[in-house]
Amino acid sequence: MENDHPEQRHPRRMIEPGAFPLRLRGMGAFHVGGREVELSGLPVRELLMAEGGQPVRIDPNGRYLVEQMYAQYFLADPDAGRLPLLLWHGGGMTGATWETTPDGRPGWLHEFLGWGRDVYLCDAVERGRSGFAPVPHVWPEAPVIQTPSDIYTRFRIGTKDPDTGRLHPFADTQFPVACFDALARQMVPRWTTTDAAVLAGYLALLERTGPAVIVCHSQAGVFALRAAHARPDLVRAVIALEPASIPALDTSVASYNVPTLVVLGDHIDTDARWSRMAKRIRDFAKAHVGVEILSLPDVGMRGNSHMLMMDRNSLAIASRVSEWLLRQGV
Amino acid sequence: MENDHPEQRHPRRMIEPGAFPLRLRGMGAFHVGGREVELSGLPVRELLMAEGGQPVRIDPNGRYLVEQMYAQYFLADPDAGRLPLLLWHGGGMTGATWETTPDGRPGWLHEFLGWGRDVYLCDAVERGRSGFAPVPHVWPEAPVIQTPSDIYTRFRIGTKDPDTGRLHPFADTQFPVACFDALARQMVPRWTTTDAAVLAGYLALLERTGPAVIVCHSQAGVFALRAAHARPDLVRAVIALEPASIPALDTSVASYNVPTLVVLGDHIDTDARWSRMAKRIRDFAKAHVGVEILSLPDVGMRGNSHMLMMDRNSLAIASRVSEWLLRQGV
Repeated sequence: MENDHPEQRHPRRMIEPGAFPLRLRGMGAFHVGGREVELSGLPVRELLMAEGGQPVRIDPNGRYLVEQMYAQYFLADPDAGRLPLLLWHGGGMTGATWETTPDGRPGWLHEFLGWGRDVYLCDAVERGRSGFAPVPHVWPEAPVIQTPSDIYTRFRIGTKDPDTGRLHPFADTQFPVACFDALARQMVPRWTTTDAAVLAGYLALLERTGPAVIVCHSQAGVFALRAAHARPDLVRAVIALEPASIPALDTSVASYNVPTLVVLGDHIDTDARWSRMAKRIRDFAKAHVGVEILSLPDVGMRGNSHMLMMDRNSLAIASRVSEWLLRQGV
Repeated sequence: MENDHPEQRHPRRMIEPGAFPLRLRGMGAFHVGGREVELSGLPVRELLMAEGGQPVRIDPNGRYLVEQMYAQYFLADPDAGRLPLLLWHGGGMTGATWETTPDGRPGWLHEFLGWGRDVYLCDAVERGRSGFAPVPHVWPEAPVIQTPSDIYTRFRIGTKDPDTGRLHPFADTQFPVACFDALARQMVPRWTTTDAAVLAGYLALLERTGPAVIVCHSQAGVFALRAAHARPDLVRAVIALEPASIPALDTSVASYNVPTLVVLGDHIDTDARWSRMAKRIRDFAKAHVGVEILSLPDVGMRGNSHMLMMDRNSLAIASRVSEWLLRQGV
């Protein structure tokens, strides 16, 4: 079937993906969205902001901008004339997800620029360069962190010996396990109560970029599917890498009709949580015509972890994604 | 004097600074440094991490990596064969400081790439993509934020009417005041108790990059001067844009002998805190042969705010910095 499509036979590679020198016709960054909050009644503090500096009177009361979102853009040159990709990271992560892999290879950011796609590297609201609201008046709950060993098992890199606490990679894992600490260093705190603000930030971004393709990972699957359902005029396709959940979309008003490819890695059945989620994803695909699933083990790609874009075969997965997008005509 | 130096007469502009298309012979990101902490005795929580997802048991106890630092690198092509620049942002900010200006012009990141310099865009420990330690066991104090109106006056963009609270720009301000909110959106929380960790992160970065030039702003002045004093083998020059303080260096062991240019904007005398700091900077320059001051009003550049790299004449200031670096032979 695939070979019937002319663009699939001759995908328009602009330059060798991920190769240098890289040429950009534009590069920059901006913040979008956010809202004003007024804080009052908080104590004024006198603080030394820099060693040997002058003490500063910090009055935290007043009007703030909070819940803005940061995006960094890289415009491909030559430009394939296709829709830009918005890269949306998972929970506890930032845009760094898509840059250099833990073992130092070019990431999906570089790869898709090489295919002549413009790329927006995003930090969700409350992550990375978007900043966060440091006063409990804005988000009452404390943020969450996960230990590296939790990440190791939840991201299906391997198992933890319950007796010794030692971590053991799956024999066939594609994750560059020797460089696991480079992934652990990327993890940042996250809130669990900010979904509405994060989605609002992403919708503000779409208003700014215009029609685009979303490439999302894990937690961001919820935001991408919600954004696609709300704004099919702006979201022309979704690549969902192991979405952490399928949101309860109200399809009584509008159906979900955005071409969507869900990519799943290996070892799903070793984890009860991922097994349940995979079933929900399959139900979602059955219920909506444009939703496809690419289960990597089913096409002979074994050992992929939750961090597909960091795994040793990350560029082979990106190629499949790129080909799927071309087949959708986006 | 300046015209006597051949390189100053013919500065080696590789391409028009800030121009596109931009060519990069490398681009990527990494985290450096950090330390392990072991948390214990904290309560386990059951949390829903994504709408409609599976509840997750979050046990915050265990071994963490904290105080790592993120850097994003852009390698110029053609490469002028000079030392890379490390861009270190000020307090309450991130690497976004050096990207697109609030009014949408190319920032110093682009400008110095255009001069054929490799550039490292850094997020200090606890800022931006470096993440932060969300448990009070690591950094006991709460982070600090400042209101946009505080920023407006402290950054010497203009004054605040004490009766109405209204903000009035200085008549000659170079800051793009119509786009002030784009600066306000860049501000992030900061701690005031993390100096040692931030400096350790920067020193780890220097170990990785090798000999480099530091371009620092405001709070980062302290870290740059400390790093230069500790590692003159790695810090070959410092460009300090309005350092918020001069650290108390122990010059009994080693003198401070790294070529350093301190750049000061306008309206210093409208602010008691900045006036005192400018005096300390002048004392520092008098005490150390290699330290020079470039006071912009003294060379006919009026109206610059604390955010020199965002002001409307930012590229003219970058040109002066570039020429000064060439005169130092770095």
